Amino acid sequence: MVHTQDSYLIGLVGSGIGPSLSPPLHEREADELGLRYLYRRWDLDVLGKPADAIGELLAAARTAGYDGLNITHPCKQLVVEHLDELSPDAVALGAVNTVVLTGGRAVGHNTDWSGFARSFSRGLPDAPVDRVVLLGAGGAGSAVAHALLTLGTGVLRVLDAVPERAERLAASLRERFGADRVEAAPLDTVPDALAWADGFVHATPVGMAAHPGTPVPAELLRPELWVADVVYRPLETELVRTARARGCRVLDGGGMAVFQAVDSFRLFTGVEPDADRMLRHFADLAGGVHVHS
Amino acid sequence: MVHTQDSYLIGLVGSGIGPSLSPPLHEREADELGLRYLYRRWDLDVLGKPADAIGELLAAARTAGYDGLNITHPCKQLVVEHLDELSPDAVALGAVNTVVLTGGRAVGHNTDWSGFARSFSRGLPDAPVDRVVLLGAGGAGSAVAHALLTLGTGVLRVLDAVPERAERLAASLRERFGADRVEAAPLDTVPDALAWADGFVHATPVGMAAHPGTPVPAELLRPELWVADVVYRPLETELVRTARARGCRVLDGGGMAVFQAVDSFRLFTGVEPDADRMLRHFADLAGGVHVHS
Repeated sequence: MVHTQDSYLIGLVGSGIGPSLSPPLHEREADELGLRYLYRRWDLDVLGKPADAIGELLAAARTAGYDGLNITHPCKQLVVEHLDELSPDAVALGAVNTVVLTGGRAVGHNTDWSGFARSFSRGLPDAPVDRVVLLGAGGAGSAVAHALLTLGTGVLRVLDAVPERAERLAASLRERFGADRVEAAPLDTVPDALAWADGFVHATPVGMAAHPGTPVPAELLRPELWVADVVYRPLETELVRTARARGCRVLDGGGMAVFQAVDSFRLFTGVEPDADRMLRHFADLAGGVHVHS
Repeated sequence: MVHTQDSYLIGLVGSGIGPSLSPPLHEREADELGLRYLYRRWDLDVLGKPADAIGELLAAARTAGYDGLNITHPCKQLVVEHLDELSPDAVALGAVNTVVLTGGRAVGHNTDWSGFARSFSRGLPDAPVDRVVLLGAGGAGSAVAHALLTLGTGVLRVLDAVPERAERLAASLRERFGADRVEAAPLDTVPDALAWADGFVHATPVGMAAHPGTPVPAELLRPELWVADVVYRPLETELVRTARARGCRVLDGGGMAVFQAVDSFRLFTGVEPDADRMLRHFADLAGGVHVHS
């Protein structure tokens, strides 16, 4: 009896996931490793299901013999209550992007934060992190904040177009990482914040095809400032391009996207994928643009 | 975007299907053809579902992005009412072993009969079929009867331990193939029937590991009689062994198992599999015993 023991059936649940690169990224790496692996999209829009159908979809995945799911917008928080167990980081973040289905149990993990942490450590290995500005306090921002503070950021200043959202994330981070390590600030203080900071992480949708533009004025990007974007479609966002042109050290969003996939793949299969190979595949899939600048 | 367009996710729904060879048989052939293909067992016993949960399971398969299902005992008839469309042979047999899920529709087919027909034409190509005895009027027997009459059997005599079941199948066959081509007879007339017949097809569970033994006394197996068994686990049933020893031409159950898979595979993928290769794979999987005697 060959193959069937080492085959993996994985799904991606979310809205508007048609262009996601996760299916070919996972499948190609599995091919390289000789694993039978099938990664299917469960697009809420195609299925005609609302976000809160996630419980029902999870049940269908169990019935249908799925070994795991990646979860994306708008289900990362909604899925939590339907799981049997959460990893400590999923508990801390209150969000799950990876569900492992095994032995009748559904276990939630979060590889968004670990994906950013590994991308950052690799792409900006000796960047100073005494003072970091984070723009965007949504799901991606929460994961990035968790990663930065775990990596030793001295003070993280969180800004968001919705001030309450920045305050809420900051309060949650202070509980976990200490009251003196996190600040929230109004969006109109971006100039002051970037003048103060060693580095800047952008975690809003600005720069995606549907939200063109740059989140901060070019003249605020001092050459001493490192700049990281979480947007990865396109890899070369206007922010990344502008920052590079102004002499900043830059990290595009590709690394976070790839390393969250690396970590999910390991959780799904128990097999360590080749991260360098996945980075190359991703660059290839994303259109030949190199992943790290 | 590679792979994902030509990947196939297939399930097998039934009870006690753990030992089924269909998953590795389909998957190996897909590997040979370079298709990404994953074939999963949906065992009612493992899922803790009754047979009439088939509608719910079919809905889960649609949600979960399955491209097709094979259906086996005890759901082949129960599944019919949940389908959007049936092939003509599925209508005739009132049973479905293959469901193709495509474009939001579930279409039922029956490849059990065509599998037997092709196995028979291949394994006993010039066997006389003027008079054939069929023992067993259940699902397998119905499919075999349909195949034999389609292949030109002059008169088919149906026997079953439950006389009403033989009568019911005979009545249904007469409607489709003509009143003078089908008879039902009591089980205790086996000696007369085998003395009368050119060939004998056995379609009950006797000879499987859980039902050891032989369905008819050895002395009734005249060397002039061809004998076909539908049991394929083991391939070499006591009936097959005994008949061969007595000089009969013999067809084991492997061919029907393989050719139903061949036909299902083609329906699922639109790709013609290599039947000879699947026969070799099957023999290999079944323990090295050759498929055709």
